[in-house]
Amino acid sequence: MNITMIVYLLGWILNTVAALMLLPISVSIYYGEGHGKYFLLCSLSMFAVGWLLTKKRPKNTRFYAKDGLVMTALSWLLLSATGCLPFYLSGEIPSYTNALFECISGFTTTGASILHDVEALSRCMMFWRCFMQWIGGMGVLVFMLAVIPLTGGQDLYLMRAESPGPQVGKLVPKVRKTAYYLYAIYFALTVLQILCLLVAKMPLYDAVCTAFTTTSTGGFGIKNASLGAYSPAIHYIVTIFLYLSGLNYNFYFFLWIHRFRDAFSIQEIKLYSLIFFGAVAVITLDVVRFGYPLEVGFRHSALQVGSIMTTAGFSSVNFDMWPALSKNVIVLLMFVGGCAGSTCGGIKVSRILIYLKTVKKEIAHLCHPRNVKIIKIDGKALPHDVLRSANIFLIVYVLIFTLSVLLISVDQLDLVTNFTAVASALGNIGPGLSLVGPSSNFDVFSSFSKYVLMFDMLAGRLELFPMLVLFTPTAWKKQ
Amino acid sequence: MNITMIVYLLGWILNTVAALMLLPISVSIYYGEGHGKYFLLCSLSMFAVGWLLTKKRPKNTRFYAKDGLVMTALSWLLLSATGCLPFYLSGEIPSYTNALFECISGFTTTGASILHDVEALSRCMMFWRCFMQWIGGMGVLVFMLAVIPLTGGQDLYLMRAESPGPQVGKLVPKVRKTAYYLYAIYFALTVLQILCLLVAKMPLYDAVCTAFTTTSTGGFGIKNASLGAYSPAIHYIVTIFLYLSGLNYNFYFFLWIHRFRDAFSIQEIKLYSLIFFGAVAVITLDVVRFGYPLEVGFRHSALQVGSIMTTAGFSSVNFDMWPALSKNVIVLLMFVGGCAGSTCGGIKVSRILIYLKTVKKEIAHLCHPRNVKIIKIDGKALPHDVLRSANIFLIVYVLIFTLSVLLISVDQLDLVTNFTAVASALGNIGPGLSLVGPSSNFDVFSSFSKYVLMFDMLAGRLELFPMLVLFTPTAWKKQ
Repeated sequence: MNITMIVYLLGWILNTVAALMLLPISVSIYYGEGHGKYFLLCSLSMFAVGWLLTKKRPKNTRFYAKDGLVMTALSWLLLSATGCLPFYLSGEIPSYTNALFECISGFTTTGASILHDVEALSRCMMFWRCFMQWIGGMGVLVFMLAVIPLTGGQDLYLMRAESPGPQVGKLVPKVRKTAYYLYAIYFALTVLQILCLLVAKMPLYDAVCTAFTTTSTGGFGIKNASLGAYSPAIHYIVTIFLYLSGLNYNFYFFLWIHRFRDAFSIQEIKLYSLIFFGAVAVITLDVVRFGYPLEVGFRHSALQVGSIMTTAGFSSVNFDMWPALSKNVIVLLMFVGGCAGSTCGGIKVSRILIYLKTVKKEIAHLCHPRNVKIIKIDGKALPHDVLRSANIFLIVYVLIFTLSVLLISVDQLDLVTNFTAVASALGNIGPGLSLVGPSSNFDVFSSFSKYVLMFDMLAGRLELFPMLVLFTPTAWKKQ
Repeated sequence: MNITMIVYLLGWILNTVAALMLLPISVSIYYGEGHGKYFLLCSLSMFAVGWLLTKKRPKNTRFYAKDGLVMTALSWLLLSATGCLPFYLSGEIPSYTNALFECISGFTTTGASILHDVEALSRCMMFWRCFMQWIGGMGVLVFMLAVIPLTGGQDLYLMRAESPGPQVGKLVPKVRKTAYYLYAIYFALTVLQILCLLVAKMPLYDAVCTAFTTTSTGGFGIKNASLGAYSPAIHYIVTIFLYLSGLNYNFYFFLWIHRFRDAFSIQEIKLYSLIFFGAVAVITLDVVRFGYPLEVGFRHSALQVGSIMTTAGFSSVNFDMWPALSKNVIVLLMFVGGCAGSTCGGIKVSRILIYLKTVKKEIAHLCHPRNVKIIKIDGKALPHDVLRSANIFLIVYVLIFTLSVLLISVDQLDLVTNFTAVASALGNIGPGLSLVGPSSNFDVFSSFSKYVLMFDMLAGRLELFPMLVLFTPTAWKKQ
């Protein structure tokens, strides 16, 4: 393990967070809020430490895959441990555990909150809360890679560890260039949504915050009623951008370089759209039968499906009150997630595609043992490694899920609460059902359970393995 | 597909069921119950058809793996479709769907019932209901293989398709001999339990029925209060025999041939015992805190853990009223199941062992990519095929689970009901929670949902693939 290099990179993380805090500082100045001073304090002290750590570039910049995993996990822990300080120091979230929970929920784009009254936050804190999701959505390491030329070619390990999906492709051969493209697309989607929301007469501040949390599929709301506080036009805009944010970013990249045919033939996107619109159809029918007018039913269904499937977790309505069929569909969508190579959490559509094809192949194999079949996606044979890791992903997902439900059961809350809280944390979604439903919050849990859920959020965001390797003693031994 | 051979074997299934019905006929004669005539009618007509089908042995007795899978699935469908006729014809279960549900629940050793009043059944029907579980526990094909020399060496395909566990081992080189040993152990366990129950002053009829449903881990009760109607001593006896029935039968075979060291070093059994006693400890503590006296709490915990983990599904108490932690543990146990090579359903402890080792190996691989590790169980390296099929099993389990929950959601029942009903059906357990809890029954579902759950019970009993292959059109094409 190259400890010097890890410390050096962690120094850069501190510098990055220090720099990012300049934005909430500006917001506080604009609105004349005194709480901006906590951001200034944090930013300066982080920069001081970061500057010390990054003063000297280590001689040995080589690091291995496991260093990349540990490094990524540590970065996110540091990010969260420092990012929550303004909440805590200002007293706006008086408990450090709660501040940390809110912050991890932010950076991992979960959007689960422990706040009873979101609107009581100052504007700069609220902005930071939403901005955290925007940073976490694409990933702070990806951001660092896009801006700072860090390491000698092994930066792919970092990108792999932070990026979602079974097969982390580089859009272009260079990691740095890939990171640049990703952030460019991300930025463009965000700006486009802000413009649309402004046209729909949303105030600028609200539009920026909402766009941050939509594009990152984070789902923090700035109103207690989440999106319920806004007009139907805004609901439609958010729904469309949720759908767009759930797409594999390869799609946009193909559009960018004019490979339209490739863009529209991505199998994952077809399955994603099928599940998306299928779920909207089922829920619309169900809630209309339940008594909603057609337009209202369709609008809320589409928004809720977009919100849960892309793992954003906005709510426009308390779907915990919906009929059972709709609720079941919502719970199942929690596990699906959006496309790989998007900002979504969950198991991801591409893995589901792999699973479906694996089963199909196995049945074919049972029927005709001598025919050798290969699993292909988008016309390319999937390497054995990708298949294996997709299988193991499911195993680990189920194991972490099971263990977490068991651990938080000590709080003696009901099964639906525990089950959906873990599904929501591990899938980076936000709300669950019952006691953690859209109109409730995660403060019902004990501190112990909150830490379990924080682990789940980080594990979910980093696709499980970085957090596991971090806690594996042998990973820390010398190679 | 060797259709002639399949038809021939199905003929033997009819003969076998016809022969097995002689037992309930004897019971009806002993108790002087007129309803025995329906068994006689069914038995005679089945024997007539069976005799016609098996009159001539097909010239080409060769069949392939897929024929074995299809054959097994069809056998079980035929078994159920005919086995339920006495219930239906006698009018004791007036709806054919319900009779079929009860029968599939019996043969698959699920133990879920649609009966509101079990005690209203005549003695011969009750006997048949429990005897079905005993037949289904070890498997009717295994029985046929033990008694009738059927095919030319390809009978392993049938045994594989019907026996539970990731790696179907033959105890001895010959399939027929293996089947004989399995039934001998099974029979011995049953008789031993009957004797113990008689010592505990249970009436003979009750003892025989209870031993049938314990050894097969089926869980049909003959009282409306299930085991709640009996004394504490009986609770302990049933618990011990549930534990014993959840063990891999290799254990008994090793004892039989005096390989004691091998018997007591089976890793699966260690993990099984660890989970078993761990769960008993947690639930005992939880229910004692909840207000149970220590002995009562321990007794019900042990019985309930044994009952759910071995997928029997007896209840001595309405555990739906237990505190949340205990309920959560019970739900998680539903997925574990007993050992492979036992009569239990569920995912099976040996697969869980494989999953845990797979994850450990993957983490080691991430930390030290150049070290090649092999997964070993009981000192033997696991073949790649076994690993692959264990992985695929989990995928298929999750997919069928998800789809089933979705399908039965149309009944608009609550999430816990749907979720635990499917878990219970797919794991061959019996009761779930909420509307399908220990004091309720599965008649709350619509006919459509009942058929979905019947599919799940059969899929769970036959370890998923036979039922899938049966519904795969290409399986029916000529090779």
